[in-house]
Amino acid sequence: MTTAISPLATPFPDMPMIAGVTPHVGRARYKSWDRNDLTFIRFEAGTAVAGVTTQSKCPSPEVEWCQAHLSGGAARALVVSAGNANAFTGHKGRAAVEAITAKAAAHLGCGVEHIFVSATGVIGVPLPIEKAEAGMDDAMAAAPCGWADVAAAISTTDTFPKGAMTQAVIGGKTVTLVGVIKGSGMIAPDMATMLGYIFTDAALAPGLLQQMVLAANKTSFSCITVDSDTSTSDTVLAFATGKAGHAPLTSMDDAGADAFQAALSDLCRQLAHLVVRDGEGATKFIEITVDGAVSDASAHRIALSIANSPLVKTAIAGEDANWGRVVMAVGKAGEPAERDLLAIRFGTTQVAENGLPVEGYDETPVAAHLKGSDIQIGVNIGLGHGRATVWTCDLTHGYISINADYRS
Amino acid sequence: MTTAISPLATPFPDMPMIAGVTPHVGRARYKSWDRNDLTFIRFEAGTAVAGVTTQSKCPSPEVEWCQAHLSGGAARALVVSAGNANAFTGHKGRAAVEAITAKAAAHLGCGVEHIFVSATGVIGVPLPIEKAEAGMDDAMAAAPCGWADVAAAISTTDTFPKGAMTQAVIGGKTVTLVGVIKGSGMIAPDMATMLGYIFTDAALAPGLLQQMVLAANKTSFSCITVDSDTSTSDTVLAFATGKAGHAPLTSMDDAGADAFQAALSDLCRQLAHLVVRDGEGATKFIEITVDGAVSDASAHRIALSIANSPLVKTAIAGEDANWGRVVMAVGKAGEPAERDLLAIRFGTTQVAENGLPVEGYDETPVAAHLKGSDIQIGVNIGLGHGRATVWTCDLTHGYISINADYRS
Repeated sequence: MTTAISPLATPFPDMPMIAGVTPHVGRARYKSWDRNDLTFIRFEAGTAVAGVTTQSKCPSPEVEWCQAHLSGGAARALVVSAGNANAFTGHKGRAAVEAITAKAAAHLGCGVEHIFVSATGVIGVPLPIEKAEAGMDDAMAAAPCGWADVAAAISTTDTFPKGAMTQAVIGGKTVTLVGVIKGSGMIAPDMATMLGYIFTDAALAPGLLQQMVLAANKTSFSCITVDSDTSTSDTVLAFATGKAGHAPLTSMDDAGADAFQAALSDLCRQLAHLVVRDGEGATKFIEITVDGAVSDASAHRIALSIANSPLVKTAIAGEDANWGRVVMAVGKAGEPAERDLLAIRFGTTQVAENGLPVEGYDETPVAAHLKGSDIQIGVNIGLGHGRATVWTCDLTHGYISINADYRS
Repeated sequence: MTTAISPLATPFPDMPMIAGVTPHVGRARYKSWDRNDLTFIRFEAGTAVAGVTTQSKCPSPEVEWCQAHLSGGAARALVVSAGNANAFTGHKGRAAVEAITAKAAAHLGCGVEHIFVSATGVIGVPLPIEKAEAGMDDAMAAAPCGWADVAAAISTTDTFPKGAMTQAVIGGKTVTLVGVIKGSGMIAPDMATMLGYIFTDAALAPGLLQQMVLAANKTSFSCITVDSDTSTSDTVLAFATGKAGHAPLTSMDDAGADAFQAALSDLCRQLAHLVVRDGEGATKFIEITVDGAVSDASAHRIALSIANSPLVKTAIAGEDANWGRVVMAVGKAGEPAERDLLAIRFGTTQVAENGLPVEGYDETPVAAHLKGSDIQIGVNIGLGHGRATVWTCDLTHGYISINADYRS
């Protein structure tokens, strides 16, 4: 499939290598394409791992493998296949995961429990073991590559490679966090979405890293939706090599833990936004903030009800300040809300208050705001102090074109 | 807006008048159009009424009025405005409802509590009282009309008028049930959807009629979705004049009650299917049946997860037997399901069983089935005896075209 680059794309940033992490890419040729589709990333011994995976009841065997081994907290390699999700493939799919992890473990002389795996692409076709092995041979023999190569090699329907970086200071040492992510459709928040990988030279106990990933996920990947469809393969993994040389963090009370959490959360939010910016068919990046709900959880559910509404998303695509559809989406969320207390704004312009359009409402500034590519919708429920922000994109002809003819 | 008639449209049936019911239509000119948009239907004294309304937390004042007066169980008139939903209009909207009900009650010499009202169209603009009153004057002065005129006058974005009829025998008397319905977008099941009206000459106690409407709703309007968006105005009302001359039914134990329930449920299912057949942009009518879930309620939620999945709906639009997306939608439903027990069929062809594509799967009959306009998807969860069927339509460029430029 040839798809134009998203109009919301941003350039791939200049991202440094992370001490203790060596990425390689190669060709498994899972599809009839001429591109790298097998990623093999080595970690030096002592690397901590943490992560979150899809809550789907039908996860891929790769997700099940990660779920089984994350509690061990130690990683020596990550292997990612692009073009075939290996999901809903039963014992054949599990055999592919076993072959990949055994081959990587043998190559590195470690236990299979230290190998983490992901796969993304078409569902229902067992991952061909011989292609996976050939791709691993190709990647293992290749020179180390840069992050842009990794971001490209893990992509499927993505229209641009996605990465982000940030830094924090722990015990006088500057630590670096880089992340790459893929995802464009079948994106809905359910603890984790799409495939995302974070690498840092910071030193953290695996349990603390897991705690921080869960916290960061809550304000990033769990707050985005492209199409309300939750993938069978969603995985976010964070790897910490400890090469920065500071005393390892083991608790949130340690000096520097707050700084690292802030950096990690910031990185996750950047990565999550990139997925929305590559939402299938997207022409607008939409931020939805709900205030005044009875709780933060209630605000989150209302915000997602708005973000997942096809009628809200098509209105934004049409640059139509149709706030009535926002009212509809609040109303269907099933959360406490009273029509006569509701206030709604587009951008910085209040359009409705107390159950009525504002007196003398002038649509001009709203129309101007909607012509831009970054749209804000604000809703105040007027009942309490619950607050949440989520991000989504508009729903356009592009989404239909991409998805009415994806597999064929 | 000029929209082509849905390719799934069916001809309006030949529907008889109902003794005790006199419909009229007129022009309120809520929009700059030259068509009837005000419906006024008179009922003779003694007519029972029952109904279900939207569960939206932001209902229109018309819905609130119906909710307040349905418990009285008696109706003398129904007034429907098309082109303006009067929703999220605060005290101005309530004033319009009060003016309409007062005018109708004065005309008929009855209490306002016997007047039922609906409105459909754009949200957030108070219904103009003077237009409503002019429309009522026009309708009241007009000769009685037929059901096709009523179905047309209550429509907004509908592409064809929708009605259905059926009969039952109670105490040796044949009773007739007719129904008209409007709805095309903002359709999602939450007890009731869209505007639907059922008229019968049968004699029923209001409480029994209410009980029967709730039962019929459960297997009809609650089982359809076009776009997962629940309207602020959804209302289904049933009016029973008692003119057929049989002894009134007061309990499900009465002879003929089962026959009437069956007829009512059948009528509601017919009407619900017509709404899906006029789903915005629809080119395929899709029936989704889930068997083997842990309960009927669980099966219903899984079926709706499939029916509301944009990726399943676009795959059907593209005539692509992408059953992996069905797996995905089962997985995200949040209901008990095990990938390795799942079986999926398209039409009458089994495509996957026990977590794997069936051996020697031949896509030819599936591809042929998908080229038709009536599509069946069957999923067996393999865990229990729960069962549900829902109906939806595909998601196409037509939906985007209609909704990215509706209000403007």
